[in-house]
Amino acid sequence: MTTLEQMGANAKSAARVLLTAGELKNKALLQIADALIENTDTIVKANEIDLKAARENGTRESLIDRLTLTPARIEGMADGVRQVAGLPDPVGKVLDGTVRPNGLKIEKVRVPLGVIAIIYEARPNVTSDAAALCLKSGNAVILRGGKEAINSNKCIADIMRKAVEKAGLPADCIGLVEDTSRESSVELMQLTKYVDVLIPRGGAGLIRAVVENSKVPVIETGAGNCHIFVDESANIDMAVNIINNAKTSRPSVCNAIETILIHKNIAEKALPAIKAKLDEKSVTLRCCERSSKILSNVESADENDWYTEYGDYILAVKVVDSIDEAIQHISKYSTGHSEAIITESYSSAQKFTDEVDSAAVYVNASTRFTDGGEFGLGAEIGIATQKLHARGPMGLNELTSMKFIIRGSGQIR
Amino acid sequence: MTTLEQMGANAKSAARVLLTAGELKNKALLQIADALIENTDTIVKANEIDLKAARENGTRESLIDRLTLTPARIEGMADGVRQVAGLPDPVGKVLDGTVRPNGLKIEKVRVPLGVIAIIYEARPNVTSDAAALCLKSGNAVILRGGKEAINSNKCIADIMRKAVEKAGLPADCIGLVEDTSRESSVELMQLTKYVDVLIPRGGAGLIRAVVENSKVPVIETGAGNCHIFVDESANIDMAVNIINNAKTSRPSVCNAIETILIHKNIAEKALPAIKAKLDEKSVTLRCCERSSKILSNVESADENDWYTEYGDYILAVKVVDSIDEAIQHISKYSTGHSEAIITESYSSAQKFTDEVDSAAVYVNASTRFTDGGEFGLGAEIGIATQKLHARGPMGLNELTSMKFIIRGSGQIR
Repeated sequence: MTTLEQMGANAKSAARVLLTAGELKNKALLQIADALIENTDTIVKANEIDLKAARENGTRESLIDRLTLTPARIEGMADGVRQVAGLPDPVGKVLDGTVRPNGLKIEKVRVPLGVIAIIYEARPNVTSDAAALCLKSGNAVILRGGKEAINSNKCIADIMRKAVEKAGLPADCIGLVEDTSRESSVELMQLTKYVDVLIPRGGAGLIRAVVENSKVPVIETGAGNCHIFVDESANIDMAVNIINNAKTSRPSVCNAIETILIHKNIAEKALPAIKAKLDEKSVTLRCCERSSKILSNVESADENDWYTEYGDYILAVKVVDSIDEAIQHISKYSTGHSEAIITESYSSAQKFTDEVDSAAVYVNASTRFTDGGEFGLGAEIGIATQKLHARGPMGLNELTSMKFIIRGSGQIR
Repeated sequence: MTTLEQMGANAKSAARVLLTAGELKNKALLQIADALIENTDTIVKANEIDLKAARENGTRESLIDRLTLTPARIEGMADGVRQVAGLPDPVGKVLDGTVRPNGLKIEKVRVPLGVIAIIYEARPNVTSDAAALCLKSGNAVILRGGKEAINSNKCIADIMRKAVEKAGLPADCIGLVEDTSRESSVELMQLTKYVDVLIPRGGAGLIRAVVENSKVPVIETGAGNCHIFVDESANIDMAVNIINNAKTSRPSVCNAIETILIHKNIAEKALPAIKAKLDEKSVTLRCCERSSKILSNVESADENDWYTEYGDYILAVKVVDSIDEAIQHISKYSTGHSEAIITESYSSAQKFTDEVDSAAVYVNASTRFTDGGEFGLGAEIGIATQKLHARGPMGLNELTSMKFIIRGSGQIR
């Protein structure tokens, strides 16, 4: 057995205990939160090793910031774990039930997935975040963070494992892969015998690599090439306001927009107002031929722009002849994350919500709301952009499976 | 574009039309049923070409039988399609809904998956079965059957495509891959741009190949190494009756049992009664050391037997010291399909249903009930043995995804 296989086998055993752990899960979560606070100094020291290495490697400042753990941030991590403890337990909920004509009583009951593996990048706070959500939903977790944060992650995982054990659950409910080579990541993706599902959290490159190479079932998260369509009946002030929010409130996140589509009958009036607002934040516009004629001081968009998730103060602009053209554009170029229509037309709103096939489809609101917290899920492990199992913000329910329980009195078929 | 890419693109376009096809889907299904009946002679003739080839290749009789289409069987296929038309439409159902404090109205709505690819083996009736279920749930389908049935499948697909078009929907709602080479199958598994989910239907070899090679998300179906545990408190008559049913009513199917586990305190009394009943059907018993001492004229089981899905009149037998040992055995060797406990003990029933992590867990009933029809789902595309998205018998709901629709009045974040 390789180290990783052994870790998989241990996680599977721990997952069996978690099936019926009930309130012990919350006890473990509260222990973890306390232990994180108590060990703040230790965590900060381990983090300093990672930060020193990052600086020596010339890592850019934005990444260093994401890597940094301060006492305040560690308190934030502990708070996050406590919040998860306070959420309702998803396990055991009866989702459906029936009595068949032959007297069989059939129930469909929510159960944990089993063993969840998470492959993630720089932020060490994901280590406690993801572990808490998996533990609460009754799953054992195998964490595989990036090498940049390995000392922080080892320290945090070690603290969490001890806390879980103190609460009376197996330490192996939480495991951390200490080998951060590419090989360990690939091996984890093949560990179908022990791992039930793999969730990648990170940039587009990481997610693509996992989706393409994993034999373990994957929940794809993250990529967001989001659109707003300004319908001919739109309230222009509302359109300006929503576009500004969706582009500039946090351009780097997946629910920010990358392209606006605008109906030809409103383009001449609306585009200058939109540009004036976005100029305040120095947003670069990449315009189609028709919008280039309406606006000045803009760049030209080419086919590539429609596909691009800028994650920056850049916005592509395209004038369309109709709502149908807008829906077709979205169907072709979108990653299926979030799209919005700004309209006062009942029919356009209906058509857009019926025909746009993305995880979240908005009428007259900012795409920035696509988020577990904003949707009221209480917590979020990621935003699924695929259609199988989970779609959109994933909370605790999305970390569960179900089984049928059938109670009989001797029935045969 | 390759032929298959073109087929994928066509299916994706058809899937967009299906999003809002409503009652047209039922019209198309009824047209398909009528057309199958009207073209009975044509189908039988096409099938004869396949049968002739199969006989020339020395195909064994049981496979020839599965390949054969008679007028009665074609009527059965048409009836199946009509039944699917009669089921409630899963699309559009509001699964959840809430109004957020900021006034956003969020609804979670059931939508089609999009494009479903199905890779299957000999039975040509799957061609109409699978197409009907996919169409009803608003999905375009790409069918890739085996080479043994290619002439039958081409004929049936052609009839269905014309019928769908006659009903006013794109013929490309249903596509058949005519190239039955291994390469076409592999290409289909990579078609992530167009195919949303892939469902293999067939033997263990086919399913393993698809799970290991597909980049398209897969719903794994089928493998059933099912168990019955006879608890010390079991009613022996009931145990005999259920074991006999679960092993011998149809040994080749996935919900038949392969191993019985029996508590040491009841083994001496129960095993002879079980063997006497199974002797009537000449079932071979493969026994552990302890059960070999209780029974005569049995074979010895080795480690391999615990893993084997015989699909035949063979049953492995193991005496266990406790319900915990039984649950551990199942956890180690089961494929997670269906398991049953025979018991009069409330505590044992609770423990077994809590701790056995399989798709269907029974108390005092035969595992043979794990079936969409028996569970009241109305139709079945397969039995999922994985934990993601669908588990157990899959009906129309399991062929859908969901999306969030958010209605606002200008909200920004």
